[in-house]
Amino acid sequence: MSQTSDRRRILSGVQPSGKLHLGNYYGAIANHVALQDQGDAYYFIADYHALTTVQDRERLAELVRDVALDYLALGLDPAKATFFRQSDVPEVTELTWLLATVTGTGLLQRGHSYKDKVANGITPRAGLFLYPVLMASDILAYLSDVVPVGKDQVQHIEMTQDMAQSFHEAYGCEVFRRPEALMAEGAAVVPGTDGRKMSKSYSNTIQIFAEGKPLKTSVMGIVTDSLGVDEPKDPEACAVYQIYKLVASPEAAAEMATRLAAGGYGYGEAKKALLAAVNEAFAPARERRRALISDPDYVEDVLRAGATAARSVAREVVGRAREAVGLARASVTDT
Amino acid sequence: MSQTSDRRRILSGVQPSGKLHLGNYYGAIANHVALQDQGDAYYFIADYHALTTVQDRERLAELVRDVALDYLALGLDPAKATFFRQSDVPEVTELTWLLATVTGTGLLQRGHSYKDKVANGITPRAGLFLYPVLMASDILAYLSDVVPVGKDQVQHIEMTQDMAQSFHEAYGCEVFRRPEALMAEGAAVVPGTDGRKMSKSYSNTIQIFAEGKPLKTSVMGIVTDSLGVDEPKDPEACAVYQIYKLVASPEAAAEMATRLAAGGYGYGEAKKALLAAVNEAFAPARERRRALISDPDYVEDVLRAGATAARSVAREVVGRAREAVGLARASVTDT
Repeated sequence: MSQTSDRRRILSGVQPSGKLHLGNYYGAIANHVALQDQGDAYYFIADYHALTTVQDRERLAELVRDVALDYLALGLDPAKATFFRQSDVPEVTELTWLLATVTGTGLLQRGHSYKDKVANGITPRAGLFLYPVLMASDILAYLSDVVPVGKDQVQHIEMTQDMAQSFHEAYGCEVFRRPEALMAEGAAVVPGTDGRKMSKSYSNTIQIFAEGKPLKTSVMGIVTDSLGVDEPKDPEACAVYQIYKLVASPEAAAEMATRLAAGGYGYGEAKKALLAAVNEAFAPARERRRALISDPDYVEDVLRAGATAARSVAREVVGRAREAVGLARASVTDT
Repeated sequence: MSQTSDRRRILSGVQPSGKLHLGNYYGAIANHVALQDQGDAYYFIADYHALTTVQDRERLAELVRDVALDYLALGLDPAKATFFRQSDVPEVTELTWLLATVTGTGLLQRGHSYKDKVANGITPRAGLFLYPVLMASDILAYLSDVVPVGKDQVQHIEMTQDMAQSFHEAYGCEVFRRPEALMAEGAAVVPGTDGRKMSKSYSNTIQIFAEGKPLKTSVMGIVTDSLGVDEPKDPEACAVYQIYKLVASPEAAAEMATRLAAGGYGYGEAKKALLAAVNEAFAPARERRRALISDPDYVEDVLRAGATAARSVAREVVGRAREAVGLARASVTDT
């Protein structure tokens, strides 16, 4: 196996799914940004995967552009991480076919994510069924060591391990590196404005790049209990505080907890403090995002440079997979 | 839609499956060779598809090489037909993903071929399940007008039509050309040495490129009834005659029919006549095949030139499919 670096390769695919919210940031993005200093990070925008849910060309293009802007604004550093569009490396679809030929349909039918989506009324299409195979292909094509995931994604990494093993056993070879799930330490489940987990599907989000009135409306709309201003409040039971402690400094968070517990501090005031903290925390990112919007060539250049680097890894690995199964060496000059 | 030629494009994928026999030739290959004069023929060696059954790199490479030799020896003319390896155009795997996202799993579950294979004990792998999507991708990527098929393959063409339509409806576009099944006229069902349809899976074949003793053993082993030499025989009930009339000239076939019906002509003699006819009919092809074996560079050059031509069509079509779904224009220079 070719090991081009002693640093472990960290892979993550980001599904473009709309306006980012605090749940995305504290649940995943902050971790991605931190990880770029801890290994050889490969982050891609999962536009092939997005086609399983978005069938609108303009919407998809917009979603992809937004993810690129969001991540770059939030601290993804192209000098540290390789950042690219999944579909700029079409070799992963070829590897998807090779893996599909060694992957039992039973393994895919047992996928939680597939079962959940179908149970929730999503039309079961072949793309959705194959979702984990494409994911495995991405992970394996870049010789990833670790994949930061939430609990609900651990099964996909296990499936990837299974597919790599099936391939190696079927062909008596070692082409892929075995990836491990990296459970994010300190990744937060962020409560939404209704107290449930913050999620676009619950319409309870506080968007990172919202500003002014829409942001204020979200924050002031956080559901609280009906304790009066004077009454002591339990910070642990208060969504405003739960979010605030992620956004504000530890000192500021401790102060709010104390004031809530003491009484005489109302939810309205807490919400205003949260609004100010969100605005302060994300002011630099918003500034960067505006600058990036006015420089689309830079963003495109970053993604192209990332794709060129990623593609050269994928070509080598997929080339070895082709050899392992007995396909001819790529014989046609790319034109 | 780009129509580069007034001649209809004829597409066929040939699954590499071992030593060719008379059933392959009179059932399909003779028709393929004839069709190269009647349109713009694209014939490919279906090595990606073969991975659903062959998981042995040396065996696959050998099978692919054999198909190339066989077809060129039997009259495929690279000056008339575009002849290439499926896997030299990896764009078809990308299109497979795009089509998979608009293809219901139900359509695939209803596939006769999939159901039959699983019923016959073949492990249901994702590759087998996706088989018709890759087939559709090949058909659509080359803007095929017609696909010569046997009865058992008509459903695959209908599935391809469905996938193209689903894609066009999902994205409000016209990227693909609607392919039609071309039922081969005069394609023969050739009886095997045991009277059943000649098929490798029945071990009842007469191989085209067998010579000398193995060929003689096959032909002399054709099962007949036990009528004595003197007795009149029904040519229509005689596998020897049924095969002979495909191989020999119409005059020679008529003569054998007359002699069988008249009596005084034994099966042994008929078999000898068949053996001589097979040897005569395929002598030029055997000669060419020997010459091709000694010139592997020529064969490779033919396949590469075919792939270059085919790939340029596929790139254009898959590029338009990418645009239709909203993926970025291929942005990374191929290196």
